[in-house]
Amino acid sequence: MIAILKPGASDAQIEKLSQWFENRGLQVHLSRGESHTIIGLIGDTTKIDTDLLMGLDMIESVKRISEPYKSANRKFHPEDTVVDVSGVKIGGGHFQIIAGPCSVETPEQISTVAAAVKASGATLLRGGAFKPRTSPYSFQGLQGEGIKLLEHAKEQTGLPIVTEIMDLHQLPLFENVDLIQVGARNMQNFELLKELGHLRKPILLKRGLANTLQELLMSAEYIMSGGNEQVILCERGIRTFETALRNTLDLSAVPMLHEMTHLPVVVDPSHATGIARMVKPMALAAAACGADGLMIEVHNDPSKALCDGPQSLTPEQFDDVARCVRAVRGAL
Amino acid sequence: MIAILKPGASDAQIEKLSQWFENRGLQVHLSRGESHTIIGLIGDTTKIDTDLLMGLDMIESVKRISEPYKSANRKFHPEDTVVDVSGVKIGGGHFQIIAGPCSVETPEQISTVAAAVKASGATLLRGGAFKPRTSPYSFQGLQGEGIKLLEHAKEQTGLPIVTEIMDLHQLPLFENVDLIQVGARNMQNFELLKELGHLRKPILLKRGLANTLQELLMSAEYIMSGGNEQVILCERGIRTFETALRNTLDLSAVPMLHEMTHLPVVVDPSHATGIARMVKPMALAAAACGADGLMIEVHNDPSKALCDGPQSLTPEQFDDVARCVRAVRGAL
Amino acid sequence: MIAILKPGASDAQIEKLSQWFENRGLQVHLSRGESHTIIGLIGDTTKIDTDLLMGLDMIESVKRISEPYKSANRKFHPEDTVVDVSGVKIGGGHFQIIAGPCSVETPEQISTVAAAVKASGATLLRGGAFKPRTSPYSFQGLQGEGIKLLEHAKEQTGLPIVTEIMDLHQLPLFENVDLIQVGARNMQNFELLKELGHLRKPILLKRGLANTLQELLMSAEYIMSGGNEQVILCERGIRTFETALRNTLDLSAVPMLHEMTHLPVVVDPSHATGIARMVKPMALAAAACGADGLMIEVHNDPSKALCDGPQSLTPEQFDDVARCVRAVRGAL
Amino acid sequence: MIAILKPGASDAQIEKLSQWFENRGLQVHLSRGESHTIIGLIGDTTKIDTDLLMGLDMIESVKRISEPYKSANRKFHPEDTVVDVSGVKIGGGHFQIIAGPCSVETPEQISTVAAAVKASGATLLRGGAFKPRTSPYSFQGLQGEGIKLLEHAKEQTGLPIVTEIMDLHQLPLFENVDLIQVGARNMQNFELLKELGHLRKPILLKRGLANTLQELLMSAEYIMSGGNEQVILCERGIRTFETALRNTLDLSAVPMLHEMTHLPVVVDPSHATGIARMVKPMALAAAACGADGLMIEVHNDPSKALCDGPQSLTPEQFDDVARCVRAVRGAL
Repeated sequence: MIAILKPGASDAQIEKLSQWFENRGLQVHLSRGESHTIIGLIGDTTKIDTDLLMGLDMIESVKRISEPYKSANRKFHPEDTVVDVSGVKIGGGHFQIIAGPCSVETPEQISTVAAAVKASGATLLRGGAFKPRTSPYSFQGLQGEGIKLLEHAKEQTGLPIVTEIMDLHQLPLFENVDLIQVGARNMQNFELLKELGHLRKPILLKRGLANTLQELLMSAEYIMSGGNEQVILCERGIRTFETALRNTLDLSAVPMLHEMTHLPVVVDPSHATGIARMVKPMALAAAACGADGLMIEVHNDPSKALCDGPQSLTPEQFDDVARCVRAVRGAL
Repeated sequence: MIAILKPGASDAQIEKLSQWFENRGLQVHLSRGESHTIIGLIGDTTKIDTDLLMGLDMIESVKRISEPYKSANRKFHPEDTVVDVSGVKIGGGHFQIIAGPCSVETPEQISTVAAAVKASGATLLRGGAFKPRTSPYSFQGLQGEGIKLLEHAKEQTGLPIVTEIMDLHQLPLFENVDLIQVGARNMQNFELLKELGHLRKPILLKRGLANTLQELLMSAEYIMSGGNEQVILCERGIRTFETALRNTLDLSAVPMLHEMTHLPVVVDPSHATGIARMVKPMALAAAACGADGLMIEVHNDPSKALCDGPQSLTPEQFDDVARCVRAVRGAL
Repeated sequence: MIAILKPGASDAQIEKLSQWFENRGLQVHLSRGESHTIIGLIGDTTKIDTDLLMGLDMIESVKRISEPYKSANRKFHPEDTVVDVSGVKIGGGHFQIIAGPCSVETPEQISTVAAAVKASGATLLRGGAFKPRTSPYSFQGLQGEGIKLLEHAKEQTGLPIVTEIMDLHQLPLFENVDLIQVGARNMQNFELLKELGHLRKPILLKRGLANTLQELLMSAEYIMSGGNEQVILCERGIRTFETALRNTLDLSAVPMLHEMTHLPVVVDPSHATGIARMVKPMALAAAACGADGLMIEVHNDPSKALCDGPQSLTPEQFDDVARCVRAVRGAL
Repeated sequence: MIAILKPGASDAQIEKLSQWFENRGLQVHLSRGESHTIIGLIGDTTKIDTDLLMGLDMIESVKRISEPYKSANRKFHPEDTVVDVSGVKIGGGHFQIIAGPCSVETPEQISTVAAAVKASGATLLRGGAFKPRTSPYSFQGLQGEGIKLLEHAKEQTGLPIVTEIMDLHQLPLFENVDLIQVGARNMQNFELLKELGHLRKPILLKRGLANTLQELLMSAEYIMSGGNEQVILCERGIRTFETALRNTLDLSAVPMLHEMTHLPVVVDPSHATGIARMVKPMALAAAACGADGLMIEVHNDPSKALCDGPQSLTPEQFDDVARCVRAVRGAL
């Protein structure tokens, strides 16, 4: 970490500041220029708050050299993390498609969709039981009942199941869930993240609509610093000025995250675009730029879906997408 | 609500769709143009999901005429709501300044600051006990102990207290808190909002960093639809491409929210700008454009604050801001 | 176009407004609901300014049913436009790679790069002569001399050349340029667009950093309404809150533009990411989601480039990218 | 300027890099840490391209200590610049209101509005002659004829006139224009800026919809580096995700620009909000946070305005705004 002092900082001030750093276990390296003095700090600076330093009168600016995330940082963990979801591996060359309906609605619906997506090559079954909805008047999901229906579909198909948790008090219901999803709106629900850090179960962490990649990794760090290192990151579109599609899918996040971290990165083209016919091109693009997996909404009858129908594929459309994704991956 | 059908929708399709709407208790009004047929829906459309309609094959686009929020809507509640925080009124012409440190740190700190801000005209005391921090390695607040220190400062000064809740399991600790704050990152923590809707205690709801005004009102609606109508909205800066300041304070949200809703609107210039010397001009601007209150960070020794020091004012600076705010309000 | 009147509009007002529309050659279709009256307008509404309507006291909101762009609209021109750049076809299944240095620097540089990119499969040569730079103190390009060097490289390799115009007074120098580029910052330089509409030469129109897809098409419309229908659109990254990369490449713009318009769409991963090692994954993603071409910066010695070195590939890296792009396209 | 080298840079590489900097007239100051070596550069670094440095293999990151703008920088010019527009002073404590119609339409319209705004305290008359419109099918302004009508209104009222230039070939028509406006879409039309730098006439430079404050100052620098130091900056709203209003007025830009530069800063609440009834609160807020002036659209009959009617005030509304603005300024 480097701190640049304002012109005119006195020797006494600099001395005092240096001691403050040394008391925090850091080595201090001074470099006096014509107009500015620069302080280089050596040691573990993850606990130094740059905002706090910025508040000191004599400091003009602060720059981190090392990233504030450690467990998630590829520099300290060069090999890819492979997350094992009840036997299905993801990351480090293992590519998986997570598919299923936005919401679990009926036993027939989830069974039909589960069988269909398995036949087309999906290896994990998704389905929403607790649904974060902008409006209190919208369908909020089948909740505990939805998880039971998912468990039943898992018994039928053998597919491990993925579903979203919205609050830590729901945790007891997730005992048989194989991969717990943290939704975009909860990416910085730190109390929830801390609690998930105490589990020994894989977590699918979705990027918030207005969160940077570094913030996404800091949220992964919350989980990992609790001891749970099985984190899968998910890019699902960010909020920008463009309104032609629901969100802007930030695919450059995929190779960039692969540089920054060793964790697997999957892409959700369904939520990002909100339009079924955009799912295929964006799924192919995600596969082409190196994603470790895809998360795709499939519904046996999208026009009757209780939630997010317009972005769901039919099983036939999903089959086509899965086939083309394999072709792209085969070519690379 | 209006639905515009794609060119070529058959009479049978239109008939079927009309029945679907009538089954949901809506009156249907058809208008056939040369190329498009338009369906007007009359009745309570708050429960109709526009995304769901968009998924129907024959529909080209959908437009709401009435807003999806009802309890928060000024159209159905023309007079300003006045929220009473343990005797301190806010909204409907009642203007209040909430002030105090970012984090509660020590008994001396909170007592000193509380006495100082009261002397300068603040009528509510803020102080963070549970702190949402981007990094798991940063100071997370004194938690329950912090709330006790706030309660003690309240006894000393008589100022009602405001502090942030991060998860609904913390609720029992908030019994003596006068105004419960929901932070920007939790604006769409719907489980928390639902729970707060069951209280009969005022809630300060901060706008999320990337949330629209309509989404802010939908979150207020979550609380209000539970029966708790004592909601104060807070603009605290949004995330944009500009990096010169921490966030972009969206002051036009103040008069716009006053049109959309009857709820009081306060402004937090400290978090929005992140720089102490920007707090005064933005506080004055907020007062000038009609805010019902301000929320300002004050610390007896900002350079030693454990959190967000750079954006805190000294008691002397706060006194100057409060005085100028009164002058602006007096002039209007 | 639909206009929704405010509750309480009188019959006389509605009659007057209807006549105003009829005087503009539109048919008016009234639909009176319980609370709102809706006016449907049939005819050519491209010249009706929605902002103007919004200004009328009795109007609550306005919604276009048909898009404000006509020449660029796929609805009126269902087949793909194929743009012919001096014999090199782009669009409608014809995929091309435009490659070359950010800036033309020396005769050796441009000749070396031109020969190399041709050998690797590029079919159009790019090179900046007039350079839009944020700082007046940065290198501004070789200007007229740069165009001469490009023309010379064209003679040597046979590759048609692409270079950016910054102002309409530079037009005489572009006589031998095969494809004239309009940069992101000039996407709404309407005087320039009008002038280019009078040419009979293909135009490469880059999307502005904060412009919507509809605005991009309206800018294409400026060129096309002048009679020049040879327009190629280029997605090159938009400005968002994310700072990990220079811009956010909006790849969903590719399939979305293909729905909205018949014009070809190319992608520039070099400017979007600003980092050479991100060019390959994003080029592959662009090819996978259906782009009609790519625009890639290549420099024989990126570390010595006078401009935008960090985003340039070496000829060897470009050869690898071009090969993998062919593999992805072959697989689909 | 500081460059941080990647771990593992060899002594020979560091030596070579140091010489490269010294050849550019800079002093080099090396500081070797445990993992990283840091190079401090002393001297005039405005001509060093940080992007270029980032391209060098051995460099991890680069940080400017001094800003890349010089003429506009308050550090080198601590006193406020006062711009004199034909006798009307703006900046350094001189506050002015620029008012008039969005577009000049008829002799009666501009005369009526000019007389009215003068009576209410406006000291500069605005009116659009060349209009940048998103659609080629929208009204493009009266052009040269519009400027003549403005000149006539100036003769009648004595108010200096302000109008927008869209292309440098229009410059001869602007001989009698007192303050030449560069619109938001042309903020980075560098050829136009360079040409305006050769004039000795004040320029009103509007911030682009997606441009940072630093970019705004770099564009001012283009004009100033040509010798024309009479630049007034204008905040007029930026583009964000929020759609409730046309743009997001970034009022914190006012105090922030006052720190960064000595140039005057005015605010245009009409274009920022796009809604007439939002102009008053935002004008008051702008005055309260220290703007040096306001730019407000006034039309004698907003509902009949050919352009931007919804955001125009009537003369009566403007009179009220001007009065309240004076009250706010009086109070501070």
